[in-house]
Amino acid sequence: MTSIPTSLPDAIAPVAGFRFSALSAGIRKDGRIDLALVAADAPVSAAGLFTRNLVRAAPVALSSARVASGRARAVLVNSGCANACTGEPGRAAALATSRALSAALGAADDEVLLASTGVIGQVLPAARVVERADELVARLSPEGARDFATAILTTDRWAKVAEARVGGARVLGIAKGAGMIHPDLGVLHATSSATHATMLGFLLTDAEVDAGTLSRALEAAAGSSFNSMSVDGDTSTNDTLVALASGAARERPTEGDLAAALGDVCGRLARSMALDGEGAHHVVELLVSGLSDAHAARTVARTVATSLLVKTALHGNDANWGRLLAAAGRAGVLFDAEAASVRIAGVDIVRAGVALGGEAEAEAERRMREPTYVIELGLGTGPGRASYLTSDLGHGYVDVNASYRS
Amino acid sequence: MTSIPTSLPDAIAPVAGFRFSALSAGIRKDGRIDLALVAADAPVSAAGLFTRNLVRAAPVALSSARVASGRARAVLVNSGCANACTGEPGRAAALATSRALSAALGAADDEVLLASTGVIGQVLPAARVVERADELVARLSPEGARDFATAILTTDRWAKVAEARVGGARVLGIAKGAGMIHPDLGVLHATSSATHATMLGFLLTDAEVDAGTLSRALEAAAGSSFNSMSVDGDTSTNDTLVALASGAARERPTEGDLAAALGDVCGRLARSMALDGEGAHHVVELLVSGLSDAHAARTVARTVATSLLVKTALHGNDANWGRLLAAAGRAGVLFDAEAASVRIAGVDIVRAGVALGGEAEAEAERRMREPTYVIELGLGTGPGRASYLTSDLGHGYVDVNASYRS
Repeated sequence: MTSIPTSLPDAIAPVAGFRFSALSAGIRKDGRIDLALVAADAPVSAAGLFTRNLVRAAPVALSSARVASGRARAVLVNSGCANACTGEPGRAAALATSRALSAALGAADDEVLLASTGVIGQVLPAARVVERADELVARLSPEGARDFATAILTTDRWAKVAEARVGGARVLGIAKGAGMIHPDLGVLHATSSATHATMLGFLLTDAEVDAGTLSRALEAAAGSSFNSMSVDGDTSTNDTLVALASGAARERPTEGDLAAALGDVCGRLARSMALDGEGAHHVVELLVSGLSDAHAARTVARTVATSLLVKTALHGNDANWGRLLAAAGRAGVLFDAEAASVRIAGVDIVRAGVALGGEAEAEAERRMREPTYVIELGLGTGPGRASYLTSDLGHGYVDVNASYRS
Repeated sequence: MTSIPTSLPDAIAPVAGFRFSALSAGIRKDGRIDLALVAADAPVSAAGLFTRNLVRAAPVALSSARVASGRARAVLVNSGCANACTGEPGRAAALATSRALSAALGAADDEVLLASTGVIGQVLPAARVVERADELVARLSPEGARDFATAILTTDRWAKVAEARVGGARVLGIAKGAGMIHPDLGVLHATSSATHATMLGFLLTDAEVDAGTLSRALEAAAGSSFNSMSVDGDTSTNDTLVALASGAARERPTEGDLAAALGDVCGRLARSMALDGEGAHHVVELLVSGLSDAHAARTVARTVATSLLVKTALHGNDANWGRLLAAAGRAGVLFDAEAASVRIAGVDIVRAGVALGGEAEAEAERRMREPTYVIELGLGTGPGRASYLTSDLGHGYVDVNASYRS
């Protein structure tokens, strides 16, 4: 895998048609900037994917309903409070912030999308947002993306930004996520309602795209990136991925080209998120092959990627192929364990069921000290393949999560 | 819950018809006793449940085939090496130890069952077992259960022993398990083969029971105990639960009475295992109620019990009801999160969707310092209920598992 940037770029080039701003509204206890806005000059094409967790936060319920129109003008994001599991007071708070912001922007209320991340079970302090809405809009600037990327962070160690070009147009991706990361983003089903937010992603392009094309490209891009990664197996109540297309570049990419560009950006954001998993030191790409179909491969990959015994072995730079195969074996997918192959960071550890011994393991363990590497599990001769991102689990995860609320 | 013994009783009363022995055969690197035998005076009724992990260890394959006859004479157990993922050499090693032991006992070879626990991927050093087989048999004693219980331990902090009576007969349960604990014990399916061992349980009774009754009672007992608990979500390659009935007490219990006695013993062994989860400080019984049926309740309970965010919150004595509901919400089971109730250690935290605030949480957090308590999630008005045991996840788990092989 290519190296993963772990710091914010010095400058982020503007994306035509979008402006950004951020400020400290006092939602976070630590005084850091916690309120961010991205706004288009006029309503633009919009698409969104949201957590499929049954328990979903007030902003998710609101935004998923609004984005169904295919148009939006702005996204208002806060950190410090997820506004999840907050019932009617939470809905009222979300609506109040949306009303204040749409008034300040001169937009229709349903053109504003919302996203929140932070502690579950606390109602968003709406008044702090409402009283700063005018100032937030007044500060909008094409140069404000760095502040936006910073304001949406919670336990993240760095902001996540990635860019790509599609013909003459740009795609800018900004995301946050560290912990409670196991996205299951989808279109809203009749039975789903939402929960608590941690993976937030915003994709902005100046390409000219209708909402349907944008939505399909977004779904394809999420499937191969955010929906194929796991930091801790906990799908959040607030996961939100929104794409906006201003059309200002007068460039009309094909759906395939757009999906590829969004996929490229989402893939790099996902790797940055995995590396920033709470307490993680490594991001590992798991490639499972040889099964009957892609679904079977994905099931095995997800089971291995979320195994605690695997994740602690990765933390200890332990080429513990037995744990890899044992986790694969409980996925409910049939394969011949005695003919399996395991390759870690390019080193063959088990070939056709035969363990190659201590020297190979020692070499793999040297390479496992790198921040990123690939683990390949060959489980047969079928065509089914899948890729999944995971991270190691160490003391930092326990530190962050045993005392997150205090 | 009742308090859980965390030390070996000073003496374990004999169970008529069984003798035990144990010694140090040098399988473990640390020199602790690592080879244990329980033997009946003659072939007795036998039943077994084994991991449903597709990757299963050589002793599991052998024992599950042999116990299908409903008769067995002895169980030979080793710690220090799981003999899992070891292919043909592993099978040969298992067979060699079984042959040596049956010869020493004067038993038929297929009357000997095997169980192994320890590191995956290393072949059992059969010669060390073979050369001690005569001595192991010579040392057999009705008083040897304490040594047996000690020899089968790996990372366990204490031996697990529980007893019950059924009429005039006794049931003695001896188990080990700490880490890689998420049993999925079942009868052998045509498609399953097995993996790496960590939960071992042996139930010995002097009741007079046919093999069919013993097998059905064992399955019922496992379903409500070992199969309803999770330390880390990783189902082992070697999980084994064997029951032997000598008939020496001339007591014939009903199937229901026997299942109740086995269930009582298994339940206490399971709680002891959960409390001894690697690095755990708490064992928590999770009661989920109000769903449409027991299957739905069990699905939610298992999802909450295996959530890393929940388990780290339990470690931090954090009454984090948002994480409980968020985990429940991703189980794929429909419920109304806004009408849910959460009670922690007897303290109402959320009642019909309304969080009761800081004072209730503070009281719950005081009670969460206890080694065992109950968390109740009320998710509706349906009849579906389920109970699941879990433990907290802290630094000890990372310590043990990031360096287990070295």
